[in-house]
Amino acid sequence: MDAIKVMVNGLPGNMSTKAAQHIVQDSSLKLIPYALTGPEIEVAEIQIGSEAVKLIKPDDRQQTIESIKRDEGAVICVDYTHPNAVNDNAAFYCENGIPFVMGTTGGDRALLAETVQKSEVAAVIAPNMAKQIVAFQAMMEYAADTFPGVFMGYNLEIKESHQQGKADTSGTAKAMIGYFNRLGVPFSKDQIKMERDPEVQRSEWGVPEPYLGGHGWHTYALRSEDGTVFFQFTHNVNGRDIYAWGTVDAIHYLAKKVDEGAKGRVFSMIDVLKGV
Amino acid sequence: MDAIKVMVNGLPGNMSTKAAQHIVQDSSLKLIPYALTGPEIEVAEIQIGSEAVKLIKPDDRQQTIESIKRDEGAVICVDYTHPNAVNDNAAFYCENGIPFVMGTTGGDRALLAETVQKSEVAAVIAPNMAKQIVAFQAMMEYAADTFPGVFMGYNLEIKESHQQGKADTSGTAKAMIGYFNRLGVPFSKDQIKMERDPEVQRSEWGVPEPYLGGHGWHTYALRSEDGTVFFQFTHNVNGRDIYAWGTVDAIHYLAKKVDEGAKGRVFSMIDVLKGV
Repeated sequence: MDAIKVMVNGLPGNMSTKAAQHIVQDSSLKLIPYALTGPEIEVAEIQIGSEAVKLIKPDDRQQTIESIKRDEGAVICVDYTHPNAVNDNAAFYCENGIPFVMGTTGGDRALLAETVQKSEVAAVIAPNMAKQIVAFQAMMEYAADTFPGVFMGYNLEIKESHQQGKADTSGTAKAMIGYFNRLGVPFSKDQIKMERDPEVQRSEWGVPEPYLGGHGWHTYALRSEDGTVFFQFTHNVNGRDIYAWGTVDAIHYLAKKVDEGAKGRVFSMIDVLKGV
Repeated sequence: MDAIKVMVNGLPGNMSTKAAQHIVQDSSLKLIPYALTGPEIEVAEIQIGSEAVKLIKPDDRQQTIESIKRDEGAVICVDYTHPNAVNDNAAFYCENGIPFVMGTTGGDRALLAETVQKSEVAAVIAPNMAKQIVAFQAMMEYAADTFPGVFMGYNLEIKESHQQGKADTSGTAKAMIGYFNRLGVPFSKDQIKMERDPEVQRSEWGVPEPYLGGHGWHTYALRSEDGTVFFQFTHNVNGRDIYAWGTVDAIHYLAKKVDEGAKGRVFSMIDVLKGV
């Protein structure tokens, strides 16, 4: 089987670089040495493994994509760009008939889905590429749907730690609150205990030194009113490899779906996980 | 609404006593002051709150149950007896038209279900009455069914601590292994780390002193091969209140089902949790 040709669009240093590094290590994938990037980027090239990847400005993207399609044939794009670029990039991929994996968050999500559905293109749209965390969220959603109120009378504590630069509360933690509420536990966003101090993270949480600048740790603890029963769920992620693994899985899934003739279809990370 | 009349059958000091103590605290339940017990029991009476409950030997049970039915009308039996008694007791309840909650483990489980299904009686059969643990197991089963292999490449550690008297490995931990296997993680029963030393439980695990003689603590930890991702699930139970709460919920559920006309039906704790 021929390698799947993949173009990773984004910005030097963001998740796109990490994803590209994993793609070049997968022998069934081939990284195209061009990447669409934003107008503000000044470097012209970025090194990914042994590949020198040329960064293409918006003005040159149409011409570049046409030449890639001519030279390489079918390509899948991976998008880790900027919230402001989400909808324009999706429209661009759809107009050029390029299936894509959208890992960029933000933008107009309804319009994003609609753009794909009205096109001949299939896409995986996944604001969270961490498969195991997506699976855990799905487990929680299943419990909330199936056993509403099962933790009634329990007290909940949510703690999360992220790198100092992250100002807002963890999106994952916020999503989990909705499930816990339906499981019978009142809790609001402002009750989440956020840790952003690297010194506390190192000494009290045990976050390894190299990941003080990039981690997402979450713990949810439930205790029965009388204190005799205690449940705790933890998911700690250091660095960004988990998202890159998920990206690679999403590419393989999308390639299979395209082979099967999928058009105008939006797939989620749950679809990738199910693999059907 | 009249209180639901409940007869709790078992042995002094086992789970039946704890269940009876919770039943007398629930104003919508009324504890019948008779309990079927085993031939080896020498005490004739046991005090549950303000109720003196008479312990009835097997030879007297038919006569006792007939007089209870005459005096009290509809009754639900709760059974926390002995594995050897499971099938005989079930047959007795069915012959006498008494819906029952079977919390006793062991015996011939297929025959147990069949006995109910061939009768006019409805029963909740629940080897584990801890609702929240049953819910967590159901979440794991859902994940194993829906996302097989999602933790492929992860290493699993299972630790459990129980009171010194418990010789065998935790049944809950064994059941969880099957789900983890389907989630992509090879693991076998002998890899479970069992703790039975009260000194270690107190000093290292932090099991509170009063529960060294009765607790069930479980932790499942998953770590990605490169060490960057860590998941951990914990459920720690001290004492037996959680099982008594579940028993009370099972009684209410069964009473509702009987009111709705259920006959020859076996319900599980999952049904109780779903509440439908």
